[in-house]
Amino acid sequence: MGKIKETIEGIKALDEAAMEAAMARQDALTKPQRSLGVLEDISVKVAGITRNFKPEIKDKVIITMAGDHGVADEGVSAYPKEVTPQMVYNFLSGGAGINVLARHIGASVVVVDMGVATDIEIESRAGNFIDKKIAYGTANMTKGPAMRYEDAVHSIEAGIEVLEQEVEKGVDIVGVGDMGIGNTTPSSAIVAFITGEPVESVTGHGTGLDSEGLRRKIERIKKALEVNKPNRADAIDILAKVGGFEIGGMAGVMLAAGAHRIPVVIDGFISGAAALIAYELSPKIRDYLIASHLSVEAGHRAILDHLGIEPLFNLNMRLGEGTGAALGISLVEASCKILREMATFEEAGVSEKE
Amino acid sequence: MGKIKETIEGIKALDEAAMEAAMARQDALTKPQRSLGVLEDISVKVAGITRNFKPEIKDKVIITMAGDHGVADEGVSAYPKEVTPQMVYNFLSGGAGINVLARHIGASVVVVDMGVATDIEIESRAGNFIDKKIAYGTANMTKGPAMRYEDAVHSIEAGIEVLEQEVEKGVDIVGVGDMGIGNTTPSSAIVAFITGEPVESVTGHGTGLDSEGLRRKIERIKKALEVNKPNRADAIDILAKVGGFEIGGMAGVMLAAGAHRIPVVIDGFISGAAALIAYELSPKIRDYLIASHLSVEAGHRAILDHLGIEPLFNLNMRLGEGTGAALGISLVEASCKILREMATFEEAGVSEKE
Repeated sequence: MGKIKETIEGIKALDEAAMEAAMARQDALTKPQRSLGVLEDISVKVAGITRNFKPEIKDKVIITMAGDHGVADEGVSAYPKEVTPQMVYNFLSGGAGINVLARHIGASVVVVDMGVATDIEIESRAGNFIDKKIAYGTANMTKGPAMRYEDAVHSIEAGIEVLEQEVEKGVDIVGVGDMGIGNTTPSSAIVAFITGEPVESVTGHGTGLDSEGLRRKIERIKKALEVNKPNRADAIDILAKVGGFEIGGMAGVMLAAGAHRIPVVIDGFISGAAALIAYELSPKIRDYLIASHLSVEAGHRAILDHLGIEPLFNLNMRLGEGTGAALGISLVEASCKILREMATFEEAGVSEKE
Repeated sequence: MGKIKETIEGIKALDEAAMEAAMARQDALTKPQRSLGVLEDISVKVAGITRNFKPEIKDKVIITMAGDHGVADEGVSAYPKEVTPQMVYNFLSGGAGINVLARHIGASVVVVDMGVATDIEIESRAGNFIDKKIAYGTANMTKGPAMRYEDAVHSIEAGIEVLEQEVEKGVDIVGVGDMGIGNTTPSSAIVAFITGEPVESVTGHGTGLDSEGLRRKIERIKKALEVNKPNRADAIDILAKVGGFEIGGMAGVMLAAGAHRIPVVIDGFISGAAALIAYELSPKIRDYLIASHLSVEAGHRAILDHLGIEPLFNLNMRLGEGTGAALGISLVEASCKILREMATFEEAGVSEKE
């Protein structure tokens, strides 16, 4: 618990002076003022995060956290549970969507086992793998808490440790993503409980549930909230009662990124639920979050509205893994290059507005 | 005129078999079907364009075409006319927005003088420059045609030649962009005339006109359309009466890209007006166009609706030069990498949907 408290205390406000200097520079670059729109806004935000009015994004990391969910036994997912470890192996072999998009943007992928239900055999596999397994999947939250309170604490702490390990290696921006069969179910529970939206409006088809499956999923989420009665004033209790290990891990990554003044790009619905947990623990984290895309998954809009952040794009995506975050990172990098590399009117000898 | 006719005749339908094979492959990749949304759609379109169900985007070129406009004398732009050549030098020195974003996505920038009002001195400048100058700017379209009919033909032919030169060097995707002080004015005239929308609703603030300037701009566009009475059945006549050399050039690039089965990513409002000219000459070109962003400039939506294509993103941009196209090209490349590089369920040993 000390580690979480310490991390939260380390999250400070954005650097106003760096942001003003970045805005002034944007206005001096050879383009009509504000003509690069959101790209200008992001670059100014990153200046405030990094305390550098010409921030440079070089080392890019996507942290993809995997965990299993006891509630999957309730038939709330279109895919069988064994897909979670199978996809972890796919990540480690470089064949998944996140690997392709990370290569495209020049980022590395760090795969973290936060609580996969089987052991991950890593020998002979390529890629970065970190074992932070809290348990072999969560318990079935329709019958009691998904995890013990101390495991929720440990999951957040593990996320903090993962990010700090990257800081030691050097990292300029981090994207977060998830893998876990059944994990839209705890995410919807978290989103409904924290935002106050009805379960029905923040519960979607996940990886491809039919309407009967969706009805069952909604019913199970309501039951889980009723059985567990999370404490609205304690985000760790919410995570413990109706969350998941990878959700806690991602929340920890976000908090630690804020404490280390590193911009963190969130992905879709699951990482959004993790962002809600992080935000409940420390509202200041909002300034360090960049939302990549608006997911197809019902309820993602409610998350972004609650956080008060706008996504960069909407490509009807709903894969998770950090795939939206990868594309978002590329836009953030582009925005910082604009700020660093474009010539000013004076440098280029271009006449200004009449 | 023969070159345009020949090019148009070379534009064929998309390859249905390649598209079906691409769709089948997307469905076999290790992700829930359709979970990459628009990225999947684009990859399938590129498969149809290139006749390759696993298309590869390696050589990327952004063609930025510059021209001046006699109508600028009417006070329809916030910037003075000398900015057009000044920005051409900025492009050639690598300091403009398009240079930064092209470097970011690994594309080269080809700068074409289609009709800048002064000579471009290219010695000691870096970068690719092509001189296709038709004249030292168009004539003032409020007093008569912007250019002679044969110059409109030549501008389109010049664009065809520029693209064919790139084909000889090898090009997998092309983005088009513009530079020309005053060029939102002819673009609005073209858009109003072709789509039938009122001039008021497709005329915007351009690089930053105030409301008095906007009122004047709308009045001048109406006058130009009234004085010139373009022939609705002849897109070359429209281009000649109320167009611009860079607009004709971009239309030529698009038509030639279609004939050579190369995907062409359009930018904002000006390249959109060029797309309307190309579409009037050959409706089949629509299948080869990918719209990058929705511009802030009023009237861009009317263009995309008329063409029946949806933009990939909306970042409140309005710079031109091909900046939106550059970001769009990166997404198209990403979409093709997904199709080429992701593992299938079978390859990765991942269980399919239950």
